[in-house]
Amino acid sequence: MPKLLILSRDAAEYKDLIESAQLPALEISKEYRRCDIVLGEPKLIRDMLPDLSALQWVQSIYAGVEPLVDPSQRRDYLLTNARGVFGELMSEYVFAYLLFFEKKIVPRIRTQKTKQWQRPESGILRGKTIGLLGVGSIGANLAGTAKHFQMHVRGYTRLSETCIQVDRYYHGDDLRNFAEGLDYLVSVLPRTNETNRIVDADLLNALPSGAIFLNVGRGNAVDESALLEALHEGKLAAAVLDVVEQEPLPENHPFWTAPNLYMTFHTSAISYPEDITKLFIENYRLYVEGKPLKYVVDFERGY
Amino acid sequence: MPKLLILSRDAAEYKDLIESAQLPALEISKEYRRCDIVLGEPKLIRDMLPDLSALQWVQSIYAGVEPLVDPSQRRDYLLTNARGVFGELMSEYVFAYLLFFEKKIVPRIRTQKTKQWQRPESGILRGKTIGLLGVGSIGANLAGTAKHFQMHVRGYTRLSETCIQVDRYYHGDDLRNFAEGLDYLVSVLPRTNETNRIVDADLLNALPSGAIFLNVGRGNAVDESALLEALHEGKLAAAVLDVVEQEPLPENHPFWTAPNLYMTFHTSAISYPEDITKLFIENYRLYVEGKPLKYVVDFERGY
Repeated sequence: MPKLLILSRDAAEYKDLIESAQLPALEISKEYRRCDIVLGEPKLIRDMLPDLSALQWVQSIYAGVEPLVDPSQRRDYLLTNARGVFGELMSEYVFAYLLFFEKKIVPRIRTQKTKQWQRPESGILRGKTIGLLGVGSIGANLAGTAKHFQMHVRGYTRLSETCIQVDRYYHGDDLRNFAEGLDYLVSVLPRTNETNRIVDADLLNALPSGAIFLNVGRGNAVDESALLEALHEGKLAAAVLDVVEQEPLPENHPFWTAPNLYMTFHTSAISYPEDITKLFIENYRLYVEGKPLKYVVDFERGY
Repeated sequence: MPKLLILSRDAAEYKDLIESAQLPALEISKEYRRCDIVLGEPKLIRDMLPDLSALQWVQSIYAGVEPLVDPSQRRDYLLTNARGVFGELMSEYVFAYLLFFEKKIVPRIRTQKTKQWQRPESGILRGKTIGLLGVGSIGANLAGTAKHFQMHVRGYTRLSETCIQVDRYYHGDDLRNFAEGLDYLVSVLPRTNETNRIVDADLLNALPSGAIFLNVGRGNAVDESALLEALHEGKLAAAVLDVVEQEPLPENHPFWTAPNLYMTFHTSAISYPEDITKLFIENYRLYVEGKPLKYVVDFERGY
């Protein structure tokens, strides 16, 4: 009989949701040594890994599983992460900021304070070009929303070209061509050895003046000094960072006060237990039937 | 040979765009007495109406044509307005504000100023309910964007139920049921005798506490005193007004400083000459062929 250990700050909510689904044969347990399944936060699971003697399968409630794919950790179990549930949330977040800038919401608030009926020029998304660094399920959702708003969409990926809502794909050394002419650059890249500092001075310099950069992937993708320089020089109109290299950001870090930098403290896509539970249930049914699970993480690749 | 008079602040741009389309037989002229076609702003056209002896057809560059449908004016010509081009712009505007509130952009900016890595709870559009007062081509576009973000959509119309992206329609006296449970109320109503003060104390009181109201239609739809009261009592979380009863808003009007009121000075959908010219060309081809034009305004109905 499968035994499930839940390791999350929202454990009580997950327990209720899973119990009410009345899954066949499943027992939710705190006897961690006897549990073959673990659902939870990668960091909490990593700390327990040595003691999970019966472990067969870990379902992460996050997309990012860095603590578990770290080479120092055991890899003798199946690791699945959360996918397909964050795209919608990320779209809301990314387009909230794109529209916030285009519609000049802050300048309009300031105009109102002057009590003058002025019509500041605001911009439109339609016809603008967004470049996605990384086009997995989140990137694909962003591409769909960009198309809804009639934008042009470029995608930079290692190999894949599966999302039909990307107008043009770029790979490998073609980063400069990818960047030229972009109105918005959005990184959705996971933390891997290959994504370190992809957003460097070269890439930022290849962007048109006045472009906007958003990072909703991982902080390692950004050369933070180069980004600061681009902001201080006014090369970028704005940057929105949901993630940074070191979280929480140290108190003396220059990002706190950099011009036109917006920080959102790793909140762009929250793991809602209702969403993650659906995904867990889907995979649990496959697990008990001995079928291949969905959203399996490749330990080597890191995502 | 058809003669076109252009009456717009953007006349030079319209002239260039129309000339480059090389329409058959069309002559752009300033001899207004001999022009059978007028393209332009309703107010400018109204002032010229008595002198337009050869007038057959007016293409308005705006959606709202109040100055022309005023009963004191002549009605012996065909009036068409601009439709189908503002929906996308309105969607960008309306969802800019909905996402601005949900994603707590201003609270996040404030948090950053404290240099503390905090994770304020932000909201999501998915699953929320939007109510559209008026579902013409603009309302239909808003409904489509709401569905893209997986929202529930209610529509209040006089009769029509043509937009399939509206989950449920309401008519006539059913305003209270329409309003109950709405997260967002958006008025897209034109100015007519029937739309006067539809958004009154009764309707505002029927909304759940914390709802948000946006007006992108016309200012006459709102009982301004009732709206002020709802804002001062904190009944509404916010109101966004692109239009007001008297524009420009008088300097001593309480809207300027009302709590949680955002004014945007009639900029939610700008008439871009490229958009309007496409629409004019479409109608011009029908005109020269003697076929029925598109977007014909009913003088009695007012839109």
